Amino acid sequence: MFAKVLVANRGEIAVRIIRSLKELGIKSVAIYSTADRESLHVQLADEAVCVGTARPQDSYLNMKNILAAAVGTGAQAIHPGFGFLSENSEFAEMCEAVGIKFIGPDSKIIDLMGNKANAREQMQKNGVPVIPGSEGYIQNIEDAKQTAKKVGYPVLLKAASGGGGKGIRRVENEKQLVDLYEEAKSEANISFGDQRMYLEKIMTNVKHIEVQIFRDRFGNTVYFPERDCSLQRSKQKLIEESPCQLITQEQREKLGAIAVKAAEAINYENTGTIEFLMDSEHNFYFMEMNTRIQVEHTVTEMVTGIDLVKAQVKVAFGEKLPFSQTDIKINGYAIECRINAEDPKKDFMPQVGNVKYLYLPVGNLGMRIDSDLYAGAKITPFYDSMIAKVIALGQDRNEAIQKVKRLLNEMVITGLNTNQAFHLSLLEDEEFLKGTATTEYLEKYFLSKWKEEQ
Amino acid sequence: MFAKVLVANRGEIAVRIIRSLKELGIKSVAIYSTADRESLHVQLADEAVCVGTARPQDSYLNMKNILAAAVGTGAQAIHPGFGFLSENSEFAEMCEAVGIKFIGPDSKIIDLMGNKANAREQMQKNGVPVIPGSEGYIQNIEDAKQTAKKVGYPVLLKAASGGGGKGIRRVENEKQLVDLYEEAKSEANISFGDQRMYLEKIMTNVKHIEVQIFRDRFGNTVYFPERDCSLQRSKQKLIEESPCQLITQEQREKLGAIAVKAAEAINYENTGTIEFLMDSEHNFYFMEMNTRIQVEHTVTEMVTGIDLVKAQVKVAFGEKLPFSQTDIKINGYAIECRINAEDPKKDFMPQVGNVKYLYLPVGNLGMRIDSDLYAGAKITPFYDSMIAKVIALGQDRNEAIQKVKRLLNEMVITGLNTNQAFHLSLLEDEEFLKGTATTEYLEKYFLSKWKEEQ
Repeated sequence: MFAKVLVANRGEIAVRIIRSLKELGIKSVAIYSTADRESLHVQLADEAVCVGTARPQDSYLNMKNILAAAVGTGAQAIHPGFGFLSENSEFAEMCEAVGIKFIGPDSKIIDLMGNKANAREQMQKNGVPVIPGSEGYIQNIEDAKQTAKKVGYPVLLKAASGGGGKGIRRVENEKQLVDLYEEAKSEANISFGDQRMYLEKIMTNVKHIEVQIFRDRFGNTVYFPERDCSLQRSKQKLIEESPCQLITQEQREKLGAIAVKAAEAINYENTGTIEFLMDSEHNFYFMEMNTRIQVEHTVTEMVTGIDLVKAQVKVAFGEKLPFSQTDIKINGYAIECRINAEDPKKDFMPQVGNVKYLYLPVGNLGMRIDSDLYAGAKITPFYDSMIAKVIALGQDRNEAIQKVKRLLNEMVITGLNTNQAFHLSLLEDEEFLKGTATTEYLEKYFLSKWKEEQ
Repeated sequence: MFAKVLVANRGEIAVRIIRSLKELGIKSVAIYSTADRESLHVQLADEAVCVGTARPQDSYLNMKNILAAAVGTGAQAIHPGFGFLSENSEFAEMCEAVGIKFIGPDSKIIDLMGNKANAREQMQKNGVPVIPGSEGYIQNIEDAKQTAKKVGYPVLLKAASGGGGKGIRRVENEKQLVDLYEEAKSEANISFGDQRMYLEKIMTNVKHIEVQIFRDRFGNTVYFPERDCSLQRSKQKLIEESPCQLITQEQREKLGAIAVKAAEAINYENTGTIEFLMDSEHNFYFMEMNTRIQVEHTVTEMVTGIDLVKAQVKVAFGEKLPFSQTDIKINGYAIECRINAEDPKKDFMPQVGNVKYLYLPVGNLGMRIDSDLYAGAKITPFYDSMIAKVIALGQDRNEAIQKVKRLLNEMVITGLNTNQAFHLSLLEDEEFLKGTATTEYLEKYFLSKWKEEQ
């Protein structure tokens, strides 16, 4: 097994990875920016290397400094976590070049699935239904018009190499399409050095359903029970659940088989998640594939009892997948609430500050709080506002909801505002309780109700 | 379901019970002594009633005040936790008399099993092997001599109504037996108003193995995978594990069947634990039965995913047992370390003080810390020194050990001494790692090694 692994990330995911490394008996190296000197991930790791100043470009995205830290400390592998360099094929390639194992798929696979038009094509080729839209790239404005007409407005114009909301335009009609086409192309070119675009129908009344897969280099492939991540605000997931109670075991197996087939077709290694939209008739449409561990992998861990990060490390080292499909059982129902340092009453404005008093309710069965918080921790303006994931496992959805509500009621974070109370409102919402909320529900319906109540 | 339940206890078990009540949607009433005004169980409960001054006799053992609190708040049931009044048949009877449900077995059953000579007889009658010793009570000194000779020295002279170490004498030879017999009898008489004695062989090279059972009023009975609680100091368990890796599935089922038969024979209701000694040839000898939830029920919860306190409440209300034997599966391996406010370097002297800084590592899969600690909590000299239970669930014993070590390494409690570092030494001990340590190991062997290293 690896003797030492560098964790190229920060925050709760860095803490979470370091903890699994410790349990595997692997030494951990943290990296940090000057803003994160006192962060929990730095305190917990066996070694820590400062890789730059607070700006992500200077530190957590600074490939050369991170590689130098890995080489300098003798780390044999790098776990990228999520965000930052986790889906950067250039970084994965650089790791490969210097003989450091990138814990994730091969750089070519990251590339293949990172280009979203490519990924669509790849999936279609393997018989996976995709969201109605262009076949491959848009050739010109006439091509765009025809495709949009065929699939029906509204549509999304999207940069093939896109991410983070850049090079994306919502288009309501043909006039807008003409107006926005060149603008989006040029934004894509500036942001990603790639002006190729594709187009997708905007689907309404759908749920966000995703299936995580895992594959080793020996060709063993498994899928995990689906996650329902339909509750989102500003394209950010807020509550994640597993399994989705609308999906039958038969559908689960069918969806799993699709995901496994897709992973096999591209000779995938390590873990990844295929995101689908599910319409009211339970048709699934491929949206995109994430070639890394996701924030919400935790609900899957709770439901199955499997440590996915440990498995990532083992598979990256060249071991066989430590579980088979029959080992993956659904032991109850899990819900996760993402706690952000933000003020819902001020349009969810990110908050900075020092944590003064902290109480995390750590007792009783079926709970877990992944967080880098401690009494005295500093929340700076430089990074993502997510500061904790509060996760509950119950025998069924109702018990999981009761448990996560209890956890949120007991948790105390003073010194800055969070969305804790907002979550508690959402957890009592009738629509939420039914389990049928779609991707638009939170922003289009719940938010206005909630604002009125304030 | 009950609308309101009073929790007649304090500390982590009161917190743990209140949390399950909350998840069941049941209002909780805490009781507290004047020393516990600011305790976590008081803060978390929906209501709290002061029942007396710090001395247990005046508050947590004050039956009249506790019953008055229950009646006054309209509680329909009382959960006694463990210790204090949990095995007091008089209190259970008083509850029954005023129409408040005592969450536990009938007072007659508590009585039957509380008299340890009775319990031995009862078990023998049902074909359960007991520790070699007297049949029923000792009639006189001649009877005692003959029995001791038959089973072989050393033996224990024990008060039939005993508990808490009173009325117990270790006896090495016949001369000592003669010397100590009257003294022990008179101590038993003073302590329990009952001078009846019995005698048991002191078994060496044995493990403490216990089996928890659960039974409803409809006669549904189940047993849980055994716990190994062999690591003890001063008759107090320090580390508990489940399952015991020395026991085969066949033996487990056989032991389970014995426990179920015993529970059925006495028409038991609710949960209880039958404690056995296991010799090196895997013969089991009945020791005693606890007619309440135990400290270490938590490892069973982790291994099976079943909330035993919720089940207690449901069964006490008159519902059917919410699980059957086939629902009880062994999902991995769990270990619990009891964290005590004590100084191992000063002969484990109990510690008092205020918790200054607290960090409880709450993240990642398979962990749980049941505790009433918070930053600022006061540890007073009046009660048991146990302040936290750190519990880890792994896929196997080795993973559970790695995880519990990580948790103990990360946990920070300042302001008073605890046995945290002592646990870490024990968790690295070769004998412990083998999993074969017997009940004498910690005091007779480990402690001297540990003292030398200090």
